[in-house]
Amino acid sequence: MQRILSRAVPAQVGREVMIAGWIHRRRLLKSVAFLIVRDATGLTQVVVTDPDLRATLEKLPEESVVEVRGTVVANETAPAGVELTDPSVNVLSEAEPPPFDLYRPTLAATLPTLLDHAAVSLRHPQRQRAFRLGAAAVAGFRSTLDQAGFVEVFTPKLVASATESGANVFAIDYFGRPAYLAQSPQFYKQTMVGVFERVYEVGPVFRAEPHDTVRHLAQYTSLDVELGFIRDHHDVMAVLRDTLAGMLAAVSSVSDLALPVVPAEIPAIHFADALALVGAPADEPDLAPAHERALGEWAQTEHGSDFLYVTGYPMSKRPFYVYPDPARPEYSNSFDLLFRGTELVTGGQRLHRYADYVAALAARGESVEPYQSYVEVFRHGMPPHGGFAIGLERFLMRLLEVSNVREVTLFPRDLTRLTP
Amino acid sequence: MQRILSRAVPAQVGREVMIAGWIHRRRLLKSVAFLIVRDATGLTQVVVTDPDLRATLEKLPEESVVEVRGTVVANETAPAGVELTDPSVNVLSEAEPPPFDLYRPTLAATLPTLLDHAAVSLRHPQRQRAFRLGAAAVAGFRSTLDQAGFVEVFTPKLVASATESGANVFAIDYFGRPAYLAQSPQFYKQTMVGVFERVYEVGPVFRAEPHDTVRHLAQYTSLDVELGFIRDHHDVMAVLRDTLAGMLAAVSSVSDLALPVVPAEIPAIHFADALALVGAPADEPDLAPAHERALGEWAQTEHGSDFLYVTGYPMSKRPFYVYPDPARPEYSNSFDLLFRGTELVTGGQRLHRYADYVAALAARGESVEPYQSYVEVFRHGMPPHGGFAIGLERFLMRLLEVSNVREVTLFPRDLTRLTP
Repeated sequence: MQRILSRAVPAQVGREVMIAGWIHRRRLLKSVAFLIVRDATGLTQVVVTDPDLRATLEKLPEESVVEVRGTVVANETAPAGVELTDPSVNVLSEAEPPPFDLYRPTLAATLPTLLDHAAVSLRHPQRQRAFRLGAAAVAGFRSTLDQAGFVEVFTPKLVASATESGANVFAIDYFGRPAYLAQSPQFYKQTMVGVFERVYEVGPVFRAEPHDTVRHLAQYTSLDVELGFIRDHHDVMAVLRDTLAGMLAAVSSVSDLALPVVPAEIPAIHFADALALVGAPADEPDLAPAHERALGEWAQTEHGSDFLYVTGYPMSKRPFYVYPDPARPEYSNSFDLLFRGTELVTGGQRLHRYADYVAALAARGESVEPYQSYVEVFRHGMPPHGGFAIGLERFLMRLLEVSNVREVTLFPRDLTRLTP
Repeated sequence: MQRILSRAVPAQVGREVMIAGWIHRRRLLKSVAFLIVRDATGLTQVVVTDPDLRATLEKLPEESVVEVRGTVVANETAPAGVELTDPSVNVLSEAEPPPFDLYRPTLAATLPTLLDHAAVSLRHPQRQRAFRLGAAAVAGFRSTLDQAGFVEVFTPKLVASATESGANVFAIDYFGRPAYLAQSPQFYKQTMVGVFERVYEVGPVFRAEPHDTVRHLAQYTSLDVELGFIRDHHDVMAVLRDTLAGMLAAVSSVSDLALPVVPAEIPAIHFADALALVGAPADEPDLAPAHERALGEWAQTEHGSDFLYVTGYPMSKRPFYVYPDPARPEYSNSFDLLFRGTELVTGGQRLHRYADYVAALAARGESVEPYQSYVEVFRHGMPPHGGFAIGLERFLMRLLEVSNVREVTLFPRDLTRLTP
């Protein structure tokens, strides 16, 4: 007999079926026992009256894997409106008693305990949900960009020199010589603009983050985008707007979560105007968290938008590859996207001429040498280009309003955690 | 004026347009000069008669990036049947002369030279093609599995112990203690079967491969699949069949390459029968390349198929997590998929009970200890399951019939190569 999924059971009233899954819960009442079987599509209630089977179930811990044959009977009081009666049970795999109850609405354990037992805690419907949403968000990211003519690329995670910042990089023994784990695909995606004009990559990036915070991971999933032949960063902002809308549309198709609405045009404010708006001194080089919150409230009140672009951050606060504003070179052609008053995505236009890279590095007192194999491409003709990167886990953290990024990471890696 | 793409030019005869791209080729004849401009969608010919512009072009090397405005005129002898006349040219980025000519049908340089200058060589239409096919193949992989109820996952690449084999693993300094780069997501994808039943991952895997061969890379892209509630490896083989068909269908949508046909049911032969068929001794533990070639010819002659499953490889030749054939425990519930007589994909059923893992490791003289955090999940109820992994670059290598895997890898990493 072919197994059917839980979600298909209600359509089979009156028939004999076979389901398979995990024992989500046993309820051993005086006259009857209920077995709740969980599979990837939901729960099915099984009614046990046979004393021998009841005796077996009494010794079979939750999370054991079973096949159950039985007759589907309508019962309004059962979870899905149906239950299986006259069951026979085949045990596929007997479990040890789980470290915490998966059938409770929320898991009664601390986050470290849940992470230590990720193989079990991830099975909880609430924890599963975050990762189904994540998969949908990534699918929406890709489909939006595929339709806009972007090509997916896969670039090296083993690199010869640290790029984003000298610190926070993992060193590796590469056949007897030093190498590093890529902190971002920044230069590779730029290089690939020279090939395909528009590219994206979904992949792991690595940061040897020495601080133990609720927002930092040693490995996270970066959704990287880069596009050529832009006029300036506003073309990048338009692509980010569409990409976010596509990600949220995909999430809404698998979830009834109340999702933010991405406006057709996300309001934007220049950094200098933002400082004035929040009453900060005009020579502040960056926005403080309180400033960002105030801007978020302003976007909500003034534009009815959860999203706000802040453009033109001072050059001094941005990486060396950022493109200056031709009209006001102390400001950059870059942006942050704020979501409800906190930064969600950073991006901008990049330098595209070799001489500009040499000058930018010199201005920061850095030598070109460690960057030579990366900046080489700019000797060979590159169009004006720019891009952005979305950290998948932080995106999910904001969407689900959880307080620790580890809650939306399958097997987080941090200062102290390297297993499971 | 808004830029239009090369492929849109033929529809604009009689109108003034702006194109933008790389100078693919300059042809400076006596009375006229031709500029061939390349963008992501193709080539456009520009006719230059103005002596001042000609003088500019004489000093502007190939691969410089330009915007060109001109009037579209039909000309049967031009590459796309049209050309731009009365052009004005705006130089976006001046290039140095490229290290080799990109306008020739094939690149006249050795593979090491092409790889050293990947940023330029990848722009060649023939080299671009491999990576467009690769992106399409991965899209087909995902869409096939999405439709079959699989969930995409992102798992750690930093792990506490080597898993697939003790050797060939990259060591890393993880906040002062040792860690390793994951050689595969094997145990994570198995663990996630306990959560979603069916999962896939597309991501980098790392092998400290000490041999310099045409098939080995230190990093490659692994397309990993795992599914639960299988009867045996034949259920995995059916999913692989559909996945390959989906990948090839996606490739055919972006290419006119002559592609192999995946039969509705791929023929299968047991390892023991395969040995007999090729006349090898019955106690051979593995198939030699000549045996595989003979089997490939047999599949072609007997079944008209480019693909052949060889099932039931001896346990001794498979990793410790492979599931034995219950009827003949010296053989395994595993398979290789041969494509035209060479292995393309390996997969099979895995052990799903904790006690079986302990016994399998003991039988190989290995301790459970280094695997503890991985095999822990099997204490907590796992269904019968199995899966497979497709190496993207080797898949492309076979599809495009190239002799070196580096030709189908954007920025290959190997024993000697860590840049660009």
